[in-house]
Amino acid sequence: MKESYKSFTARDLEAIRNICGADRVIPKEEIGEDYSHDELSGIRNYPDVLVKVKSAKEVSEIMKYASANNIPVTPRGSGTGLVGGSVALCGGIMLDLTLMNSFLELDEENMTLTLEPGVLLMDVGKYVEEHGLFYPPDPGEKTATIGGNINTNAGGMRAVKYGVTRDYVRGLEVVLPNGNIMQLGGKVVKNSSGYSLKDLMVGSEGTLGIVTKAILRLLPLPKYKISLLVPFPDLPSAIKAVPTVIRASSIPTAVEFMEREVILAAEEFLARKFPDNTSDAYLLLTYDGASKEEVELAWKEAADICLECGALDVFISNTQERNESIWAARGAFLEAIKGSTTEMDECDVVVPRRSVAEFVLYSHALQEKHNIRIRSFGHAGDGNLHIYVLRDDLDDAAWENKLAAVFADLYSKADSLGGKVSGEHGIGCAKKPYLAESLSADEKALMEGIKNAFDPGYILNPGKLFTINK
Amino acid sequence: MKESYKSFTARDLEAIRNICGADRVIPKEEIGEDYSHDELSGIRNYPDVLVKVKSAKEVSEIMKYASANNIPVTPRGSGTGLVGGSVALCGGIMLDLTLMNSFLELDEENMTLTLEPGVLLMDVGKYVEEHGLFYPPDPGEKTATIGGNINTNAGGMRAVKYGVTRDYVRGLEVVLPNGNIMQLGGKVVKNSSGYSLKDLMVGSEGTLGIVTKAILRLLPLPKYKISLLVPFPDLPSAIKAVPTVIRASSIPTAVEFMEREVILAAEEFLARKFPDNTSDAYLLLTYDGASKEEVELAWKEAADICLECGALDVFISNTQERNESIWAARGAFLEAIKGSTTEMDECDVVVPRRSVAEFVLYSHALQEKHNIRIRSFGHAGDGNLHIYVLRDDLDDAAWENKLAAVFADLYSKADSLGGKVSGEHGIGCAKKPYLAESLSADEKALMEGIKNAFDPGYILNPGKLFTINK
Repeated sequence: MKESYKSFTARDLEAIRNICGADRVIPKEEIGEDYSHDELSGIRNYPDVLVKVKSAKEVSEIMKYASANNIPVTPRGSGTGLVGGSVALCGGIMLDLTLMNSFLELDEENMTLTLEPGVLLMDVGKYVEEHGLFYPPDPGEKTATIGGNINTNAGGMRAVKYGVTRDYVRGLEVVLPNGNIMQLGGKVVKNSSGYSLKDLMVGSEGTLGIVTKAILRLLPLPKYKISLLVPFPDLPSAIKAVPTVIRASSIPTAVEFMEREVILAAEEFLARKFPDNTSDAYLLLTYDGASKEEVELAWKEAADICLECGALDVFISNTQERNESIWAARGAFLEAIKGSTTEMDECDVVVPRRSVAEFVLYSHALQEKHNIRIRSFGHAGDGNLHIYVLRDDLDDAAWENKLAAVFADLYSKADSLGGKVSGEHGIGCAKKPYLAESLSADEKALMEGIKNAFDPGYILNPGKLFTINK
Repeated sequence: MKESYKSFTARDLEAIRNICGADRVIPKEEIGEDYSHDELSGIRNYPDVLVKVKSAKEVSEIMKYASANNIPVTPRGSGTGLVGGSVALCGGIMLDLTLMNSFLELDEENMTLTLEPGVLLMDVGKYVEEHGLFYPPDPGEKTATIGGNINTNAGGMRAVKYGVTRDYVRGLEVVLPNGNIMQLGGKVVKNSSGYSLKDLMVGSEGTLGIVTKAILRLLPLPKYKISLLVPFPDLPSAIKAVPTVIRASSIPTAVEFMEREVILAAEEFLARKFPDNTSDAYLLLTYDGASKEEVELAWKEAADICLECGALDVFISNTQERNESIWAARGAFLEAIKGSTTEMDECDVVVPRRSVAEFVLYSHALQEKHNIRIRSFGHAGDGNLHIYVLRDDLDDAAWENKLAAVFADLYSKADSLGGKVSGEHGIGCAKKPYLAESLSADEKALMEGIKNAFDPGYILNPGKLFTINK
């Protein structure tokens, strides 16, 4: 049904320069290699032009032009995605939103932060904490932009207690494919006024509109927090303790699982010792709260539960230094695993919490079945697992075949456990086949219908999620 | 564009009896008066047939028949809505879902409850609390069905700390207008796998699909809770304290405001004394937590803040008896106000928390401007206000004119403050004109596009939200 896109010409370049000026409009031949791919997916393509936009008005004018001229547009933040979501698959215009990185308003009475999409996640955290406030979503990649987080509905470590990005987006300004600027939601806490376009926009991976402003919900900053590093004799006993820990009186802020081999890789990567590396498997628990007593009550109950469930010890981490050494290691897992091999790809499934142990053991067993190295870590508390398949010295054909076979097994297993293709990294183009397999015909038709309502010309971020390339 | 619906005939009745048997299929002439209206809106119409469905399969077969024959279908729970959402405006088939009221599974490891849509909210609370678990959404109307709560994205008292119904819906089973049964979400905590149809379905007021099963997220039951009744010399000083209370170290579970005249009405209605009725305005605060110390720390800080902000006293309510007397009064406000007049209508706007005082004072002033009684109470903590316009002894014409004039003022004021038409009661048909005014042309077009994708024949709950009657 869809015709192909118009070829991008010198005239188009000129038209875009007329909107933004020449400085921030970079023609294909001058675009840096970084813009041709993201952090992991291996999917590569250059846009025809890179535009470093500075305002919703510029985005609006570019979208009007692209819409009228049938030119594809790919929005991009820091490019830290893992599934090719920000790669300009069909060429055309890439909108780099990183210069739109201003904090617009901290409203302490409504406890909201209004900001532009290019602000980095780490800067959001720092900024609100200086004001005694707290933005709970905590994805591992702190150099991601908040716009990217909104587009993937990023989750992170603290989802078990605090939820995911969608839960903290109160309002959005969105430029539609037709160039119109639309305001969704606002500073209100509740809203039952028609279909929730805001909630639909969150997690839509840049295929429905371009986020040019967001209003985020903030919480009071928890005054106390503590981490527990809990060694177990093996992974199953560690993960089996998790539902009991979560079922206790207080919800942990984070429950991560980690294995010795990943910790060793992180130690080597960081050239820094982890507090303990003698056990096969660990849980890392965090509790936070408004008082020392509250947090103490919570962690003591959790420590008892862990010991009853077979933990070998419980290391308390209540100093800044120790916390940093643990969380620095946790934060370095992805890079450490990446550094230990030639190439890798990842599976970001989420399964019901009860099924985490079964899934992780299943993924371990695939190492032998397919004769390939697999490493994993993840959010035991919310069932979102990060499973990495490592290429090591495999040749192209073997790597592609094995990766496809491992992924087929992993996604099929997750599906059989009631899991979903992506917990937080999104679908992009790398996970399209697995999303396609997991959706019913009705879900596909409804998503197509929604895409058609927002972007009838299919010009926005083509080739992502379930959308076809023209 | 839309043709009119087919007239409902004896042959249609026969076809539906063939699906469900004769007992649960009630022809128009035998339908009780209750089914022609809801709790408040004054909008009345009878369906052509009332079907007390018992399974998703029955709903599916009826939808297939209705779809093939162009017959409108209106789903209905307890009929406790306030905006006409469950009235069969265009006749046709009414699906009564109250017999689908089974608890299907309490999964303690995943902390989810799977249930049918006809379970009453009060039964959800009781059931999970018996298992030491907690379903946080707490709308005032406890005899509403959970299906109704999902369809309006009901909020309630505890939204300030815990969020609204959408935040607790992990998965849905939905029968689409074409009769297909679709599963959305599941027991997973995170999900970034395509457009979130689940979040779109929540709050869609029965216009996109019929919820036949839900998977709800549960929390650990807070072990301690305490309420504070805080008298203030006047309403502005009460409401002005709220942002500071919420900005403190611990978030209150609920922050309600109430005025003397509403309390007196509730005392009379319940024939039961409120702990104090000597002040003009009150805040009712609740704190909950896992330990006595945690809750104590929170309420003491709040009490100090209230006193600094001009509170006359702080009454602690930590006994079951006292709590019940306060919350029974709060729960009776709607009925008490209703009982004090001949007829009334309500405005359920939500405004940013910072603007609550301004909005409530504005609504007070309208009493004089329009020479009509107006009563209000509501959720000061989340900005969701319930403003009641009372008819008293006005004749039909005066009532209609005055109501329209007051509503025009209220909705226009809310809009100017960044508020929304409905915080939690939904739009139904009573609030359609105000929703229409508040939406941009793009939002309208997108909502129409979504409706078209789900229900191209416009047979589901016609005439609600923004949809036209055929």
